[in-house]
Amino acid sequence: MNQQETKNAGVTSAEIICVGTELLLGQIVNTNASWLARSLSLLGLHSYYQTVVGDNRQRLAACIRQAAARSDIVILTGGLGPTQDDLTMAVAAQVAGLPLRLHEPSRSAIAGYFERMGRQATDNNWKQAQLPDPCIALPNNNGTAPGAIIAYIQDGHPCHLILLPGPPSEMQLMFDESVVPWISSRTRARLRHVFVRMIGIGESSAETALLDLINQQQNPTLAPYASEGEVVFRITQAVRSEDEEDRTAGLLEAVRQRVGSFIYEVGTRTMPEVLRDLLIERGQTISYAESCTGGLATAQLTDYPDASRVLRGSIVAYDNDVKTRQLGVSTALLQQEGAVSEACALAMARGCRKLFATDWAVAITGIAGPGGGTAQKPVGTVWLAVSGPQGEETQLLQQGRNRARIRKVAALNAHNLVRRQLVR
Amino acid sequence: MNQQETKNAGVTSAEIICVGTELLLGQIVNTNASWLARSLSLLGLHSYYQTVVGDNRQRLAACIRQAAARSDIVILTGGLGPTQDDLTMAVAAQVAGLPLRLHEPSRSAIAGYFERMGRQATDNNWKQAQLPDPCIALPNNNGTAPGAIIAYIQDGHPCHLILLPGPPSEMQLMFDESVVPWISSRTRARLRHVFVRMIGIGESSAETALLDLINQQQNPTLAPYASEGEVVFRITQAVRSEDEEDRTAGLLEAVRQRVGSFIYEVGTRTMPEVLRDLLIERGQTISYAESCTGGLATAQLTDYPDASRVLRGSIVAYDNDVKTRQLGVSTALLQQEGAVSEACALAMARGCRKLFATDWAVAITGIAGPGGGTAQKPVGTVWLAVSGPQGEETQLLQQGRNRARIRKVAALNAHNLVRRQLVR
Repeated sequence: MNQQETKNAGVTSAEIICVGTELLLGQIVNTNASWLARSLSLLGLHSYYQTVVGDNRQRLAACIRQAAARSDIVILTGGLGPTQDDLTMAVAAQVAGLPLRLHEPSRSAIAGYFERMGRQATDNNWKQAQLPDPCIALPNNNGTAPGAIIAYIQDGHPCHLILLPGPPSEMQLMFDESVVPWISSRTRARLRHVFVRMIGIGESSAETALLDLINQQQNPTLAPYASEGEVVFRITQAVRSEDEEDRTAGLLEAVRQRVGSFIYEVGTRTMPEVLRDLLIERGQTISYAESCTGGLATAQLTDYPDASRVLRGSIVAYDNDVKTRQLGVSTALLQQEGAVSEACALAMARGCRKLFATDWAVAITGIAGPGGGTAQKPVGTVWLAVSGPQGEETQLLQQGRNRARIRKVAALNAHNLVRRQLVR
Repeated sequence: MNQQETKNAGVTSAEIICVGTELLLGQIVNTNASWLARSLSLLGLHSYYQTVVGDNRQRLAACIRQAAARSDIVILTGGLGPTQDDLTMAVAAQVAGLPLRLHEPSRSAIAGYFERMGRQATDNNWKQAQLPDPCIALPNNNGTAPGAIIAYIQDGHPCHLILLPGPPSEMQLMFDESVVPWISSRTRARLRHVFVRMIGIGESSAETALLDLINQQQNPTLAPYASEGEVVFRITQAVRSEDEEDRTAGLLEAVRQRVGSFIYEVGTRTMPEVLRDLLIERGQTISYAESCTGGLATAQLTDYPDASRVLRGSIVAYDNDVKTRQLGVSTALLQQEGAVSEACALAMARGCRKLFATDWAVAITGIAGPGGGTAQKPVGTVWLAVSGPQGEETQLLQQGRNRARIRKVAALNAHNLVRRQLVR
């Protein structure tokens, strides 16, 4: 026991096995692998392999054995569902030489889940309460399938299998709630991370500006941290204990000196969260007038709790008639300048602020494509405007032809336009 | 030679190895794996494994040997760049026991590429023209790195390594231009897929209703296909040629008899696309009044082109004051029934239809959490209402405590409520 404890304390490597025929057929993109890989990296674990395998008893067992032979921790996702295809729990138990037994707390959690949903559990749902004995059961606070941590020794090498459900919302919550503390107590390496989030600068420009810091720093280190539509850098200090002196501040200051004007957050909050918190601090309210983003900017803000403390309402003014009737944009302006224009964005913001009686209103109007572009206003042209107690500001975006990206970047910059006014 | 040709004609399996440290660190999502997997599946090849490995000579060589032992074709992406980290071509040549030699057509293509770009090739760029000898060189019409098809026999098993660049735009073009014709001439099997998409039924209930079809069908087969927030089944028929009789229709009919009322699409369209197309067909318009979804339902519809043909506008009525002023929900109703009630949803839908003068309006009001729940109306309680030319309908959802899921499922069901009226 003592020896195992000692060895566990030295956990250094982990690999990921994603189970599911839908991955092998390419029907879904494997976002679980990248999410888990990022999380393992933040925990200071090395990860040398990722594997995808189907719901097949023999192939899955072989993959688990191979992974357990070369990594201290094997994380499996998928195949914990109630259907016959879902084999991961049974195969992991078999590899570890453990029997499956009804786990009463899990059975009762599943019963409670169905009761709350007002639905009837079917016979195959109870299969999900069958867990290897012994194991650490991981409660699923977003669905029915519990996860499990299974310890066993393979050819003298002590290893752990960590089984998580496939749906990202269930997997991520379970990992953060149950697996992070478990792993943290078993690794020696501690990493102190500081995330620096920027907007308005491209990744390669940011890298060029920070190149010597990226190449020369040893501890802490500076590295780009990929994130769609924005630029994030990570400062990482390896420490022996939580008490060790924090040396990230000096490097952060050096980063600020180069690209400070683009930094909107040092931490983990997203742009909508930063904006929400600024508005809460000031006790102010906001509304959105969205055309090409079609509700996306407001949906991003309301993704987060407490949006109701700052958002009164929004209007999606897709049709020009709505811009005129509800937002008071004059038909003359629409005819002369067009709906995608600085003047229209500004009129929309003013009308929106009045309509919802908010401190701030922000408007987005543009051409998301694929149709609707012209030589003067190609697809990707977006005008933003903010109207508020400190005055007004507009911004023009030009950003390629990808509809999803145009909408996402426009929404992100709309929040930022208000944020810039607030921190001025 | 003849024997090898005959064996090649029987190519049935392929697997994918993606090479890159940025994948192991989770800095990018592995879209290459899903794109290639989908392409292989459409070509009728079986694919049982996907592997991600870093730019490491020993680990990469071991992965290639393992894959070549169990699959007829091994597709590798990444690691063909000009830097020292890029090892894939050298390691593949070494595994196949082949020397690397300067491939003159590739050298001249790289020279031409830099000339066209008006840039100077650096010394390490010529490394990309070093290919195994012999191999089939695959021209890169989107970048500098050529790909290669390498034939070799490993422990008596003839196999092919297909090396492709990592950037998706280069990889996809090379695959479609050069690899698809090469594979097609060597396979006989073709798969015909039909996707059946459902809403309003849980995955396990659907599987219970279809269990005998799932278990007994040989060709075509029926299998569940995971998709968050909805239920999708896949009918797959293996055919020898494109002309072979389509036998998917019979199985589809059997599925319809069991769960027909839940099917909203046979094909690849999502719920918002199905709704958009129904409205376009009828020349009708729609608007949304969203409370707890905060613009998400409208954002889902406008994710797709041509939403402007059916959507006039939407209102996010987050604050009760907005429900009253803009949508005409009476304060008495709000006081007596509360904002999350059937009566409020219906009043919001009616007010929205009037405000935007649309044929259809749909309202969503609920408690997305984490706060705001009560014993009578727990977090997850959502009322939907539709108002349109065929009358009105309401729906109550109760769906757990996950904010993101509550919002997503509510939006999906809001579209569906209108769709059901349209197909009645």
